[in-house]
Amino acid sequence: MGVIGGSIGLALRSQGKAKLMGYDVDLKVASEALKLQCVDVLAEALGAFGDCDVVFTAVPPHAVRSCLDKLESAIKPGAVVTDCASVKGFVPTWIAKKPSREEWFVGGHPMAGNEGTGPSNADSTLFAGSKWILTPTSGTPAQKLEKICDLVRSMGALPVEMSIGDHDRHVALLSHLPHALAATLVQLSSNLESPDVAGGSWRDLTRVAGSNPELWQHIFVENKKALSEALGRFIVQLTDLKAAVESGDTESIRGFFENARQIKRRQGGAV
Amino acid sequence: MGVIGGSIGLALRSQGKAKLMGYDVDLKVASEALKLQCVDVLAEALGAFGDCDVVFTAVPPHAVRSCLDKLESAIKPGAVVTDCASVKGFVPTWIAKKPSREEWFVGGHPMAGNEGTGPSNADSTLFAGSKWILTPTSGTPAQKLEKICDLVRSMGALPVEMSIGDHDRHVALLSHLPHALAATLVQLSSNLESPDVAGGSWRDLTRVAGSNPELWQHIFVENKKALSEALGRFIVQLTDLKAAVESGDTESIRGFFENARQIKRRQGGAV
Repeated sequence: MGVIGGSIGLALRSQGKAKLMGYDVDLKVASEALKLQCVDVLAEALGAFGDCDVVFTAVPPHAVRSCLDKLESAIKPGAVVTDCASVKGFVPTWIAKKPSREEWFVGGHPMAGNEGTGPSNADSTLFAGSKWILTPTSGTPAQKLEKICDLVRSMGALPVEMSIGDHDRHVALLSHLPHALAATLVQLSSNLESPDVAGGSWRDLTRVAGSNPELWQHIFVENKKALSEALGRFIVQLTDLKAAVESGDTESIRGFFENARQIKRRQGGAV
Repeated sequence: MGVIGGSIGLALRSQGKAKLMGYDVDLKVASEALKLQCVDVLAEALGAFGDCDVVFTAVPPHAVRSCLDKLESAIKPGAVVTDCASVKGFVPTWIAKKPSREEWFVGGHPMAGNEGTGPSNADSTLFAGSKWILTPTSGTPAQKLEKICDLVRSMGALPVEMSIGDHDRHVALLSHLPHALAATLVQLSSNLESPDVAGGSWRDLTRVAGSNPELWQHIFVENKKALSEALGRFIVQLTDLKAAVESGDTESIRGFFENARQIKRRQGGAV
């Protein structure tokens, strides 16, 4: 019940949704979330979710499997479980081991967040206007997918369906790589005497540089394949740019910025 | 009289400063700036600035020298000229050719801007709360430096003195590199089917990706030395991170994000 789990609770509560039960392995976090009214009641273990119609897990990607395994034996027939993890690569293998898992689990990923941690940084409007990726598989029951879509919409987000492979490739570039760039920039600035002279571009580019290291280490390891490819392509482009700068190749540098501007205009208000 | 020149006009005007004369090589831009009241009157050439006490040039870095050379023969004794260019590397050689230039020119660089172009994107509050780097040299008259500082403060900015070398090294990392990263990110996203699913980190990291290609090609070529070094260090860090991702080195990745978070916290609200 950190930023994401806490915000889901606050967002559903603000829509007057039915009773919300919450659980966190950290008792301090759990009682803080209850105090902040992210949930109505606390569960003492994942086994207590047997009466729930819908369960959202909001844990780092490496912890999703063990959560789902515990929920598997606890949930009632007809219930649906979705996650919020930023990497979905584990899902196909996990389903292949027990195909009935498709009947109650739908992968999900809200494309929103902030650089804080804990329920005190949760926000009922965190998802408003954002996309929420859902990764149904061939055996996902339509009415369960629709139930998650309805809840996502009630939180102000727009559900977008994608395959698991497409999801991991999209987030590697659109989310994981930006976090790597921000963290790298901030590290390089530690050698400067006056980093505080920076203007708006620096502020924007480094906003997410203070993100939770424990969460991000797991995201990076779990999305190894797509992220390594994105990093590789980024390094190649930057190396080309460095060569153009060193040889004073004005035309290439202009083309580089012109190309970026055209793509940005084409993508318009969408990003 | 684009974003920077226009904003200087609007900011000084909002403080009720004396008569403002403006010039732009592009007559359309000049008349638009006059219409938007960025200046009180238009000059037909740089030679017309002979009555001015202070002159701000706001042109791309490669165009500063020719502006200054034209102003040199036009300005009256006691006048002071400052620029706004993002690279100052040319100044020492330019002064060495004629040491009297130190007496009337003080390098300047407002650390603010936006991704627009032209006077319609000028803003009287553009500099409010920003730093404005000044690069006086050993022969800069104190009262002329103070005159520029006063005007900078009247626009809501905080003057910060720096050597030319320090300036170019700082902006390579704090401004030029972020623009390169944003433009690279956007270019990579053109291969994605649904870049519009992106969340806040993407929006922030790519905000400046649509910046003016003509301006940035010149900045990159003029700041070759410092920028090439910054790009090189960035590529090394990113290559290390890629290796850590590929070998599943969780500890290194965690250390990478932990280090960034600590530096960001240390820099605090300053950036």
